[in-house]
Amino acid sequence: MIAYQKTCQHRVDTALEVLFTPPRPELERLYQAMRYSVMNGGKRVRPLLVYATCEALGGDLEQADGAACAVELIHAYSLVHDDLPAMDDDDLRRGQPTTHKAFDEACAILAGDALQSLAFEALSDTRGNPADPALRLDMLRHLARAAGSAGMVGGQAIDLGSVGRQLDQAALEVMHRHKTGALISVSVLLGALASGRATSAALTALQQYAEAIGLAFQVQDDILDVESDTATLGKTQGKDQAHDKPTYPALLGLDGAKVYARQLHDQAQTALTGFGLAAEPLRQLARFIVERRS
Amino acid sequence: MIAYQKTCQHRVDTALEVLFTPPRPELERLYQAMRYSVMNGGKRVRPLLVYATCEALGGDLEQADGAACAVELIHAYSLVHDDLPAMDDDDLRRGQPTTHKAFDEACAILAGDALQSLAFEALSDTRGNPADPALRLDMLRHLARAAGSAGMVGGQAIDLGSVGRQLDQAALEVMHRHKTGALISVSVLLGALASGRATSAALTALQQYAEAIGLAFQVQDDILDVESDTATLGKTQGKDQAHDKPTYPALLGLDGAKVYARQLHDQAQTALTGFGLAAEPLRQLARFIVERRS
Repeated sequence: MIAYQKTCQHRVDTALEVLFTPPRPELERLYQAMRYSVMNGGKRVRPLLVYATCEALGGDLEQADGAACAVELIHAYSLVHDDLPAMDDDDLRRGQPTTHKAFDEACAILAGDALQSLAFEALSDTRGNPADPALRLDMLRHLARAAGSAGMVGGQAIDLGSVGRQLDQAALEVMHRHKTGALISVSVLLGALASGRATSAALTALQQYAEAIGLAFQVQDDILDVESDTATLGKTQGKDQAHDKPTYPALLGLDGAKVYARQLHDQAQTALTGFGLAAEPLRQLARFIVERRS
Repeated sequence: MIAYQKTCQHRVDTALEVLFTPPRPELERLYQAMRYSVMNGGKRVRPLLVYATCEALGGDLEQADGAACAVELIHAYSLVHDDLPAMDDDDLRRGQPTTHKAFDEACAILAGDALQSLAFEALSDTRGNPADPALRLDMLRHLARAAGSAGMVGGQAIDLGSVGRQLDQAALEVMHRHKTGALISVSVLLGALASGRATSAALTALQQYAEAIGLAFQVQDDILDVESDTATLGKTQGKDQAHDKPTYPALLGLDGAKVYARQLHDQAQTALTGFGLAAEPLRQLARFIVERRS
């Protein structure tokens, strides 16, 4: 997994890097803030999902670069905005100052806004995407929905609205399915579509896989927030509890949360039963998600 | 002009209105904030440009609804974010509390983010757009570029970076060409593309028209900021001067700014010389821009 992850990381970082050249000197600071928010040694889980799914269906990775960049740009912009004082008010992200700390608040708002536009630009480009315009348009529509009010942004709104409230497990999952699940699911979907070889049966199975690992990722995040120390995690530990945010360990107990993460992992593996050896990276990723320590 | 403007306003408002139905009750407040930020009696100058340009080329307005919504959604999101305390810190917009005042700051950031996604979704939909996917994709790419770091967001960054600095006219125009010009130009371009009948000669002429009215709009805005009182303008008067922002009246004098607005108007009319009667709304709009009082 580590080797595969490095390969994907390198591949998407190479594709991302070229996006941050300012077209004129007046824009240098904005592009610096955009670059700073993206080129930060992130794990690139979502691009990996794009590539691994494209590969599982026997597709050409060159046609998945645009989608890999797009999902990471959406993810990066959402972190920049989530970290703002009016939102989660975080000073650290992966052990580094958050964008509004390294630059300033206005610059962070604008960098986030520009990264969102850039995601759609990356996916509308001929280079790095399937040649068929109808297919690219389909991918764009899916990304717009997953990123917006009915997806990721909606999840963040539900999250903010539920601080200090008692959520039951169903309500917590509605929140996570939006906040993190939508972008993880669409990463798998875009990888499948970019391959140009997705049957409807494959899409259904991959959707089940994506939903399971999306939740597993979140459950494991909550577990790590309780267990890890600040140094390993690169963000302030116990922050969710301190903010009285609903978490799986709070709801199910720490052991219960671990059992649940394992169940979700098994569901993800079951969904991939019909896939061959080419789906091995997807299987390894499911394991990695519930076994990671940071 | 007033009648034509009302028609366009009604047309785009009808198309926009259906976008704000929350898919589930947890998302109600976010959708309310999005709706509040868009359905506010705005002049809909950019949608009007889409429709009027489509009409000038003999196109079908039903294929321009998506583009009209998209440019207004981008415009609306940019206002929500520009009004935030970390940016221009405005309490009033069109005489009403700004979104972060009517809701809260986090909600305003998220509503803005979601409106941007929604713009791309509106343009990727089959309904309200040209049937040809390659054409729609082309329109999407142009919008993403005009909205992002090399366009509108870049202009806002240049603007924030120039507060308190002495800009010459060339630098001021670079800022405005990005901040407001890019979205006005792309409105004209999307209207032309949506018609499915844009020749390269027509596109060049329309681009000249768009650049002239884009600047004229800004010059007139600066003039109005000096001349109008707060009640007519619906925002705090003299705000630009108070913030020591560079303006055309500060640079050219009030009379000089008025002469310049008139020159830009004339350039816009000249660019339309080759167009027939169907371009009359575009001509009227150019007049309206330099004659409006609010």
